[in-house]
Amino acid sequence: MSDMKHKFEDALMEFERALDYYLTPAHRKDDTVWRAARYSLLSGGKRVRPRLLFMTCRLFGKDPPQEAMAFAAAIEMIHTYSLIHDDLPAMDDDDFRRGQPSCHRQFGEATAILAGDLLLNRAFEIASASCVKSGRPEAVSALWWMATMAGGEGMILGQSLDLAMDGRCREGNMIQYTDSTNTSAKDGLTSIEQVREMVTLKTACLIRAAVGAGARLSGASKDEETSLDQFAASLGLLFQIRDDILDVVSDKELLGKTIGKDVRDLKKTYVTLLGKEQARLALAEAARDAEKALDALDEKGRATSELRSYIKVLETRVS
Amino acid sequence: MSDMKHKFEDALMEFERALDYYLTPAHRKDDTVWRAARYSLLSGGKRVRPRLLFMTCRLFGKDPPQEAMAFAAAIEMIHTYSLIHDDLPAMDDDDFRRGQPSCHRQFGEATAILAGDLLLNRAFEIASASCVKSGRPEAVSALWWMATMAGGEGMILGQSLDLAMDGRCREGNMIQYTDSTNTSAKDGLTSIEQVREMVTLKTACLIRAAVGAGARLSGASKDEETSLDQFAASLGLLFQIRDDILDVVSDKELLGKTIGKDVRDLKKTYVTLLGKEQARLALAEAARDAEKALDALDEKGRATSELRSYIKVLETRVS
Repeated sequence: MSDMKHKFEDALMEFERALDYYLTPAHRKDDTVWRAARYSLLSGGKRVRPRLLFMTCRLFGKDPPQEAMAFAAAIEMIHTYSLIHDDLPAMDDDDFRRGQPSCHRQFGEATAILAGDLLLNRAFEIASASCVKSGRPEAVSALWWMATMAGGEGMILGQSLDLAMDGRCREGNMIQYTDSTNTSAKDGLTSIEQVREMVTLKTACLIRAAVGAGARLSGASKDEETSLDQFAASLGLLFQIRDDILDVVSDKELLGKTIGKDVRDLKKTYVTLLGKEQARLALAEAARDAEKALDALDEKGRATSELRSYIKVLETRVS
Repeated sequence: MSDMKHKFEDALMEFERALDYYLTPAHRKDDTVWRAARYSLLSGGKRVRPRLLFMTCRLFGKDPPQEAMAFAAAIEMIHTYSLIHDDLPAMDDDDFRRGQPSCHRQFGEATAILAGDLLLNRAFEIASASCVKSGRPEAVSALWWMATMAGGEGMILGQSLDLAMDGRCREGNMIQYTDSTNTSAKDGLTSIEQVREMVTLKTACLIRAAVGAGARLSGASKDEETSLDQFAASLGLLFQIRDDILDVVSDKELLGKTIGKDVRDLKKTYVTLLGKEQARLALAEAARDAEKALDALDEKGRATSELRSYIKVLETRVS
């Protein structure tokens, strides 16, 4: 078991080298926009989504599919671009990220916007290059899935709902709430169901992208895909609730970003809406749902212990 | 001939309907971020890149490849996202676009950033969906080409060089010029070669994306791909020089965006560097280069008259 753990850590070191490689263009690597993209992408981070992609692949075989590294890198790039844009003054206006000044604090707003664009676009460059190389339709399907989860019916929609809830979504000089959020939001009240929907889109979709891409690349059956997607959706919810809790119980040094911001900015989160204790109960429930979704895979003879351990890791993480 | 023209205009109306369709998600289409994306994408525009993609396909056969519509829409989405982000206060700070208030003026900065992200991401959603559907490796190759041309070694790099030339690229409180622009840029001087490189990346790459995607989808030979890419590069340069000229000779009503901005903002363009007359000579030279690149296709028996007419259209356009 410790041998296996060792091997997985090796795979992650290989992943860090691959990230560096994918963000080193043939020319102009010292151009500001590339330096900004590298600054944000290569500054640590927990690599939750790549880990999940690799773990999902390991359910189906010892050696990862040939496109796994490119897709893991692509999804981490999408995650990082979303953080860069989210930190901008017009959005969350955050000065710190991953323990260092946020991208726009270091490189200015214009470059940060472009560096985010670069990372989102680069994700599709390297994922499509791996599809061209392998010629496998499974990889094209994984690319489509990743794009869909990251887009305007997935993560970006979640971000838009988040803005609307905080009243930061302005049209002309009027604060506008989206037509589709219900009356209570228009009254300035947000229900926990709305927060759940927002979180499911904003955070869980990219977790689903990682797990679903791993499943598709590995040739999972439709049933297995469905179970894994349910697992990923619950795990994504868990991840965000834990984030909400850490915003009030952690400290800046440990978390690498500003603390207590949700309360200060009147953000709608599990903690600001339900309180810490109820949020902890919701966290435990999400963990149980994630576990339950894996049962179907056990029945198919897949060894889910690694994924089960990772639920615990994310549930109890302190940063 | 007029029958044929009629048919092409029908194809463009079909394209507008397709754009609308691709920007209508199953749910939440009234969400602010979708409305903002539709506002910017469906407000007219010359559709230069989609036209070029379709014209390129018509070199190789009467009926376009099955993925052509999706790719044409994808490239127009990429173009539109680049305009939305480019117009932001931190970038070019432009209040008008396509004859109406720019996206951030209408919907606020946060939503404009997200709407741009949505369009870039959506491009890859619909292009990859068409790849999944057709199962053709040529389509995956076209997707890779489109991504590469749009990215940090293509259009986005050009945008970054443009920022650096104008001294809008700040790191900390210091204005930074990129290490790779040469000494004259560091002295605050920009050579026409640097402007040419910037334009080639910023504007020509997306023209190359359209033409190259059309060529790949149509199964062009490597030689034909190369000739078409040379054509597209020259046409892209022509397009931008004409843009630079229009900035000083057109009016706002006609152009649909702010006029005289290049001079006011000390932008480095063919006109601000060389003057109007020299810029006109460079325009004519780019037109000749584009024509010349098409000769090789004539020799292969491809009917290039439509593309040749379009060179003239773009060379003499007034908006």
